[in-house]
Amino acid sequence: MDKNNSSMKALVFHGPNSLALEDKPRPALQEATDAIVRLTTTSICGTDLHILKGDVPTIPDGRVLGHEGVGIVEEVGPGVLAFHPGDRVLISLITSCGRCDFCRKRMYSHCRVGGWLLGNHIDGTQAEYVRIPFADNGLYALPPEAEDEAVVMLSCILPTGMECGALSGQVKPGDVVAIVGAGPVGLAALLTAQLYSPAETVMIDLNDNRLMIARSFGATQTVNSSDGKAAKRIMALTHGAGVDVAIEAVGVPATFDLCQAIVAPGGHIANAGVHAKPVALHLEKLWGANITLTTRLVDAASTPMLLKMVQSGRLDAKKLVSHRFELSEILKAYDTFGNAERSHALKVAIKNPAQQP
Amino acid sequence: MDKNNSSMKALVFHGPNSLALEDKPRPALQEATDAIVRLTTTSICGTDLHILKGDVPTIPDGRVLGHEGVGIVEEVGPGVLAFHPGDRVLISLITSCGRCDFCRKRMYSHCRVGGWLLGNHIDGTQAEYVRIPFADNGLYALPPEAEDEAVVMLSCILPTGMECGALSGQVKPGDVVAIVGAGPVGLAALLTAQLYSPAETVMIDLNDNRLMIARSFGATQTVNSSDGKAAKRIMALTHGAGVDVAIEAVGVPATFDLCQAIVAPGGHIANAGVHAKPVALHLEKLWGANITLTTRLVDAASTPMLLKMVQSGRLDAKKLVSHRFELSEILKAYDTFGNAERSHALKVAIKNPAQQP
Amino acid sequence: MDKNNSSMKALVFHGPNSLALEDKPRPALQEATDAIVRLTTTSICGTDLHILKGDVPTIPDGRVLGHEGVGIVEEVGPGVLAFHPGDRVLISLITSCGRCDFCRKRMYSHCRVGGWLLGNHIDGTQAEYVRIPFADNGLYALPPEAEDEAVVMLSCILPTGMECGALSGQVKPGDVVAIVGAGPVGLAALLTAQLYSPAETVMIDLNDNRLMIARSFGATQTVNSSDGKAAKRIMALTHGAGVDVAIEAVGVPATFDLCQAIVAPGGHIANAGVHAKPVALHLEKLWGANITLTTRLVDAASTPMLLKMVQSGRLDAKKLVSHRFELSEILKAYDTFGNAERSHALKVAIKNPAQQP
Amino acid sequence: MDKNNSSMKALVFHGPNSLALEDKPRPALQEATDAIVRLTTTSICGTDLHILKGDVPTIPDGRVLGHEGVGIVEEVGPGVLAFHPGDRVLISLITSCGRCDFCRKRMYSHCRVGGWLLGNHIDGTQAEYVRIPFADNGLYALPPEAEDEAVVMLSCILPTGMECGALSGQVKPGDVVAIVGAGPVGLAALLTAQLYSPAETVMIDLNDNRLMIARSFGATQTVNSSDGKAAKRIMALTHGAGVDVAIEAVGVPATFDLCQAIVAPGGHIANAGVHAKPVALHLEKLWGANITLTTRLVDAASTPMLLKMVQSGRLDAKKLVSHRFELSEILKAYDTFGNAERSHALKVAIKNPAQQP
Repeated sequence: MDKNNSSMKALVFHGPNSLALEDKPRPALQEATDAIVRLTTTSICGTDLHILKGDVPTIPDGRVLGHEGVGIVEEVGPGVLAFHPGDRVLISLITSCGRCDFCRKRMYSHCRVGGWLLGNHIDGTQAEYVRIPFADNGLYALPPEAEDEAVVMLSCILPTGMECGALSGQVKPGDVVAIVGAGPVGLAALLTAQLYSPAETVMIDLNDNRLMIARSFGATQTVNSSDGKAAKRIMALTHGAGVDVAIEAVGVPATFDLCQAIVAPGGHIANAGVHAKPVALHLEKLWGANITLTTRLVDAASTPMLLKMVQSGRLDAKKLVSHRFELSEILKAYDTFGNAERSHALKVAIKNPAQQP
Repeated sequence: MDKNNSSMKALVFHGPNSLALEDKPRPALQEATDAIVRLTTTSICGTDLHILKGDVPTIPDGRVLGHEGVGIVEEVGPGVLAFHPGDRVLISLITSCGRCDFCRKRMYSHCRVGGWLLGNHIDGTQAEYVRIPFADNGLYALPPEAEDEAVVMLSCILPTGMECGALSGQVKPGDVVAIVGAGPVGLAALLTAQLYSPAETVMIDLNDNRLMIARSFGATQTVNSSDGKAAKRIMALTHGAGVDVAIEAVGVPATFDLCQAIVAPGGHIANAGVHAKPVALHLEKLWGANITLTTRLVDAASTPMLLKMVQSGRLDAKKLVSHRFELSEILKAYDTFGNAERSHALKVAIKNPAQQP
Repeated sequence: MDKNNSSMKALVFHGPNSLALEDKPRPALQEATDAIVRLTTTSICGTDLHILKGDVPTIPDGRVLGHEGVGIVEEVGPGVLAFHPGDRVLISLITSCGRCDFCRKRMYSHCRVGGWLLGNHIDGTQAEYVRIPFADNGLYALPPEAEDEAVVMLSCILPTGMECGALSGQVKPGDVVAIVGAGPVGLAALLTAQLYSPAETVMIDLNDNRLMIARSFGATQTVNSSDGKAAKRIMALTHGAGVDVAIEAVGVPATFDLCQAIVAPGGHIANAGVHAKPVALHLEKLWGANITLTTRLVDAASTPMLLKMVQSGRLDAKKLVSHRFELSEILKAYDTFGNAERSHALKVAIKNPAQQP
Repeated sequence: MDKNNSSMKALVFHGPNSLALEDKPRPALQEATDAIVRLTTTSICGTDLHILKGDVPTIPDGRVLGHEGVGIVEEVGPGVLAFHPGDRVLISLITSCGRCDFCRKRMYSHCRVGGWLLGNHIDGTQAEYVRIPFADNGLYALPPEAEDEAVVMLSCILPTGMECGALSGQVKPGDVVAIVGAGPVGLAALLTAQLYSPAETVMIDLNDNRLMIARSFGATQTVNSSDGKAAKRIMALTHGAGVDVAIEAVGVPATFDLCQAIVAPGGHIANAGVHAKPVALHLEKLWGANITLTTRLVDAASTPMLLKMVQSGRLDAKKLVSHRFELSEILKAYDTFGNAERSHALKVAIKNPAQQP
């Protein structure tokens, strides 16, 4: 690889519904705590589709998208302590300074100078190279045996399912857990909720194919909610008791409503979906029901733990990957991921063949 | 006192806006685990006013109201282990069997055969005598030095403030706590939140008199919200950070809205108010704010702890009592308590002079 | 079965090393909250062996031993609410009143009038019939499909492993857990620790057969400590970091020492073993190591959850049972269980054939 | 103050029992994340006395002692984000990188490259200037109204009392807390335990003067343990129940023993003392007592909260300061602090008059 070649391929946003794979200058170190990473694998997130549709108006024309990635450290600033060129690393979607009040509370997503920056406020990972601010806090060393495809699921989707779903919902052994929405977030919640051994996990979706996948991922019950009777059916499944934990993994009022309808007294509603409008909270019914409702932007605080689980073989992260592409095919990858109903896509892995070790 | 006399005075509900102090037969033991208690002091709760207005349609004509009380055990069933005639006791608003799944989780308010029964599903405490089911779980022994007026505040209002407010809100040292509503529930939340040493407690209400009382109860800041600028003012007070804990102690959409507007990322909204209709939950703003929102029907699980605090002199429960009456004046007590804006009433203590020790 | 026949077979303690299977009068109801249960299956606990050796001097001559059992309710007192004759039930080793301060804190083992009574302060379950005080709090209803052999493991051994081991040790996903002692308590800790998905579980014992069983129960590493190098080997396995949780499941100073030697800074030592003498706590080394050390007498507070796990097929309790006997063979069962090194016994199931449904 | 003058006064350790106030070169920036702070106030810790006695053999000849301080930022490296020359700051005793696994778990005292460095592995704060590594994580901005004397108590002693005592002991409202040792650590535990509103705080010491001070700091009971009857007396005070939390604040076997003798079932023993030898842990008595025992090296994770409490006027940190000196008198300060029984010293404040703002 020619280090003097200062350009790279990158997927660039040019306003709603306009993406292009272009040559861009390679990123350079800006701060002492930066690292430059050569990407070997990246992915596409549901949020990238929202950006593409124009739902995130703050994203400027020219932005390189993407916040998921695995790669090789190319260069580090003088303030980076733990990483060196040649290190194989996982990139976290969250940039965190490790110093501010929110970082000290482990709320990295609200870091005063960080948060979700990659592919949003700064150029992202759907490219050959990316600049990672506060590299010591945003990268994780990978052992040789870790597979790119498995590990790239730890950049965003698995911490999201874990933190916004399983951890916020306080899933515990013996629980009945319902997950509304069997897309990537819901499936990640399903995989990670099982780390706490619920007695039953009920997956709810409109799409039978996704429900079939959910079963293969360990759901003990599935409910197709297209007939409007999901709540009734879940209450029957639980003999009228309701569920201990309801995880909302869609982001629309109807799915939030379903969570309210099925949660047991003393139960948890963990909101993992991104909502565009208010929902009705039925306090006239729930004020006395001892409910705990949580919202969360993924902090990626669970990444080290998830990495241990993947390395020990106890979490099969790779099965979230349904399709594989090369970086040169990334527009096709967007098309596949963006038409999941037709393509049956879960997550995609996008490899940069030139960079494979 | 004539033990053979089998009638007693009791405050009886006869449908909306109709109460009467009448002669009723004294309650008798029905189950082995019952006790009969002679009341020395009772009180009136905001919920009693709701009943009076007709908001609780399940209350039948003829019901003796009231769920707060202090008294002397008159008689116990053969299954009562811990109490004997002559014992001075505090009566908990919550009846709990101590055996069902909810009781084992300490969710006594959802007890399969108990919950809020007194003055609701069975005759209550605004009378000379009351029958207490599962007496071992619903009564607390009182030492001679405990004052009726202080202790009767532990039947309902202080556990409500503690559990639905301070505990659900997870108040901790250094926090900024806002309490919306300076009525008895809000003031009880204020007194009990202070057990966890917040740095600041901001009380919000429409009524300047109540805010003045809140200051005397320890609020460090007060905000009159009648001009619609409370949110703005609280954000200014917190230098834009918002509050760590917002306690809703009113039960209407506007006050719940205020809580949402002022809660800091990572903060808690603890709902203590009783709501009659849905509220709008602003997930379009809060989905990524790492908020925890709780609802709770008071379980009175905190009563033993509160009793220790009152006995050790560290919680001045008595200052919630603004007016005192005899049982014969209970209709006047309802009038005073029901017109708090005019009377400046907080809680009332209603004594049965014949029963005083 | 002749209901008029008022005698039964029972295993009776007659002082150290003296047991006999004898005819005894059947137990009768004594309190309103009692139940009489006909046993279909019982078991033997390591504690019973201690009693047999004379280590529990409070046990009187004539006591029927045993605190584990599954059976059919024969009779209930008038104060029993949840059970009726004919109900199939699991018997908890712990008797709890559900009313005292300890019961309200879920510390049932320290119940003011209960605790470990069966086969200790009152006659136990190694018999055809047993009297269960506070039956509503000491019995659990069983569905028809529950197998005696699986469920009887929930009377004592699995709650012990769960509470004194996994829960006290706060096992969480990604942890490295070491369990010192692969006897029934250690294996129960192993099974229940896995409900929290540790990355690694290291089992330590002197006996290779038990270590082989531990592997088949899910241990990811095993260490035979007979050469005195266990600590060194575990530190090597963890690359010098030590373990997140060390569970002591033997009850002698050497095994407690090993836990201290291998616990990582910030880690947990959960003592599940019954100790007969003091141990040296190395505060000169551990004072600054941010260690949490716990002791616990099993409260059986986890029984309802474990029952859900067994019923949902997620906890294979039955595999703890290595040998099966009939009640008439109970002395042989004691011999087998008491010579585990030779017999390779884990837990034994002792069935009463006359009582099988 | 002459900025070109590159020497400073500093208290230098020259081996056991040998200290000197000397001229030393001023510290200079070494890493990008360093800051140089001009000290306005420092203090002496019990640990400094141990160093002086030769108990910490790793301290080299020539080391500037001290790990407590308040001052003005003189210079910052290019990697320091939050501080600038002229900022008034509190110095934490703990150096933390904010990036390693321990820092991410908030176990800053075990930071892979930090921990207790000041006055130990690097030169400390008993000087005119000090170099602070990872300044963003080891300094706290002070508002103009914060008093040096109050705030310097947050460098070490109050976080120690809070974290090793109150937090580790999980003090909660209504608890009975016993603190064994009324020296600075014990008094700091007393002040911070009160933030959680225990019902009773019992202080135990051999010295009546210290017990009198403890009373003035809020202890509700005091016990002089010199007659060997402290355990008996505390059991009597608690009507045989024992204490919910026992905080060990001395560091010798006898005081640890006392904690074991008085802790209630379900209670906590929080070890805050620094121990030089093993203690006997009475597992033969405590194995079934549901005890939680903790050890901890102060992480100073509670400093931001304590700072809020001091600033809001709810924690009177200053009252720990019994004696005041100028830096030129620091040997006299050591003498006073080292002979506390005679001098009645608690903590000393050592001011650098040339540096006062």
